Amino acid sequence: MTIGIDMMGGDFAPLEAVKGVHQYLSGDNTPATLTLIGNKTEIEKLAVEHNISPSHINIVHAEQVIGMQEHPTKALKEKKHSSIAIGFHLLATGKIDALISAGNTGAMLVGALFSIKALEGVIRPAISTIIPKSDGGTGLLLDVGLNADCKPEQLNQFAVMGSVYAQLVLGIDNPKVGLINVGEEEGKGNLLAQAAYPLLKENKHINFIGNIEGRDVLQDKADVMVCEGFTGNIILKLAESLYEITHAKKVKEEFFERFNFENYGGTPVLGVAKPVIIGHGISGSKAFMNMIRLAQIMIEKDVMKKMKDELSS
Amino acid sequence: MTIGIDMMGGDFAPLEAVKGVHQYLSGDNTPATLTLIGNKTEIEKLAVEHNISPSHINIVHAEQVIGMQEHPTKALKEKKHSSIAIGFHLLATGKIDALISAGNTGAMLVGALFSIKALEGVIRPAISTIIPKSDGGTGLLLDVGLNADCKPEQLNQFAVMGSVYAQLVLGIDNPKVGLINVGEEEGKGNLLAQAAYPLLKENKHINFIGNIEGRDVLQDKADVMVCEGFTGNIILKLAESLYEITHAKKVKEEFFERFNFENYGGTPVLGVAKPVIIGHGISGSKAFMNMIRLAQIMIEKDVMKKMKDELSS
Repeated sequence: MTIGIDMMGGDFAPLEAVKGVHQYLSGDNTPATLTLIGNKTEIEKLAVEHNISPSHINIVHAEQVIGMQEHPTKALKEKKHSSIAIGFHLLATGKIDALISAGNTGAMLVGALFSIKALEGVIRPAISTIIPKSDGGTGLLLDVGLNADCKPEQLNQFAVMGSVYAQLVLGIDNPKVGLINVGEEEGKGNLLAQAAYPLLKENKHINFIGNIEGRDVLQDKADVMVCEGFTGNIILKLAESLYEITHAKKVKEEFFERFNFENYGGTPVLGVAKPVIIGHGISGSKAFMNMIRLAQIMIEKDVMKKMKDELSS
Repeated sequence: MTIGIDMMGGDFAPLEAVKGVHQYLSGDNTPATLTLIGNKTEIEKLAVEHNISPSHINIVHAEQVIGMQEHPTKALKEKKHSSIAIGFHLLATGKIDALISAGNTGAMLVGALFSIKALEGVIRPAISTIIPKSDGGTGLLLDVGLNADCKPEQLNQFAVMGSVYAQLVLGIDNPKVGLINVGEEEGKGNLLAQAAYPLLKENKHINFIGNIEGRDVLQDKADVMVCEGFTGNIILKLAESLYEITHAKKVKEEFFERFNFENYGGTPVLGVAKPVIIGHGISGSKAFMNMIRLAQIMIEKDVMKKMKDELSS
């Protein structure tokens, strides 16, 4: 397998990306060849400095970089030689099997939506986040920002995609799916949640446990938590702020340590034909290493194929 | 002023309500006469046991109680002699100036919406919650559950009502209003947030600072945070769960102590003509005391009149 990495994305590019590559290659079970996309001279120099064996990497030169603040669609269109544009070209043409970037999030999303195809039948892809549970477990929340307004059927698809991901990547058997809502009983909620509930209830591909409330998000109630991308994004960023706040207040508690996004690397775009993983702008080496590992697992387990099967059967 | 209290509402009724009345009356600056609504024999007995002077209270007998799980509209209609139904009757007829209950939340909301009038021009009342800020400050979030689906103009009204409340009750001068959203720039968000933004921007009655994100909710960015009741309810319950989780994990940190709702008593229904305050089912004496104090402040500062003026001018 070949995993492509945008080496120029993120606030500490390309140094942290190179260090992440080194960390990945220093681990066990590293079957992937890594295609490093970016400034060739710079990457080669750093690769030597970090003792990265040339046999495991393959550098593809990109002379442009899409800045963090650039307009996604415009930048992708105008900067054909940027690392992200080249990355998506390599992905679309089968030269790489997955693409990772900590660069311009919007450009990565636009690229994921338009350069490679959505899975057959998927209305719109979604992005998810890991949610640490207070009992030590791990949940998955989606969508967290790609679809601020949703149709009920989309939430139903998120439930399937999230279940496949939770099972294959997070290792949760028969994951419990909860619909994020303002009350437990069927019939509660806004128009979207009211309309989504019966679809989820009838869906044979998921283990639907009903509505879950805000108080259940961090507790062990549902493994896969489904909502539109507006509410999901608010929850995600609120959760992230807990790490910052508890750190600033010097609260020593393992639970809040788990809100450090670096532990998880990046968020995959779910519902597209190939793994696309988007990292935080402030990704450090550990985040890059974890994103490469995540891409490897997604390829090994053929997560996209399983999603496609579950969605279309 | 006369403040009415449903003594039969909540999980520990009427004992905790009686203790809360005692605590209120033991404090300084207690100009209110308290009208205690519920089982007269029981309340009289407990009032004597708790040394409550009969000169400060006035007991109105109610022979029925609306249970916590009863259907709100049905229960209010069928149980005319319940403490909540009698309470709203007293409020509507001017016998009391405010009503407090820790009973059936739905029945309190239905009562607030239909027994007493909404303020002139208010599309729909809202409920708010105090949000502790990590720097020690206090924010206000609304709506937190009364309006799961909203029109843009409603969010604009919430901003005005929240600003008046923050100023008069929370003592925040010229409160900063933020629109809860998925990004900072104008134009971001779901259709509702996109449409609400220009209304808030043009509103001369508020100090609008723009969009705020999930990460800003617990931080010192906006004093009044506006969203529809779906997202608001998820945030509220997630915030409440932080108190439970940190308590269970024995995290000692003043910030999380402030997520204990008992500190705040109850939530007022904003946008109705008279103060209606709804407490948690598990309200203890401190919550009751704080709800009575809140009602007193709302009457003293004539919060409803100020809201009406700001909304109609």
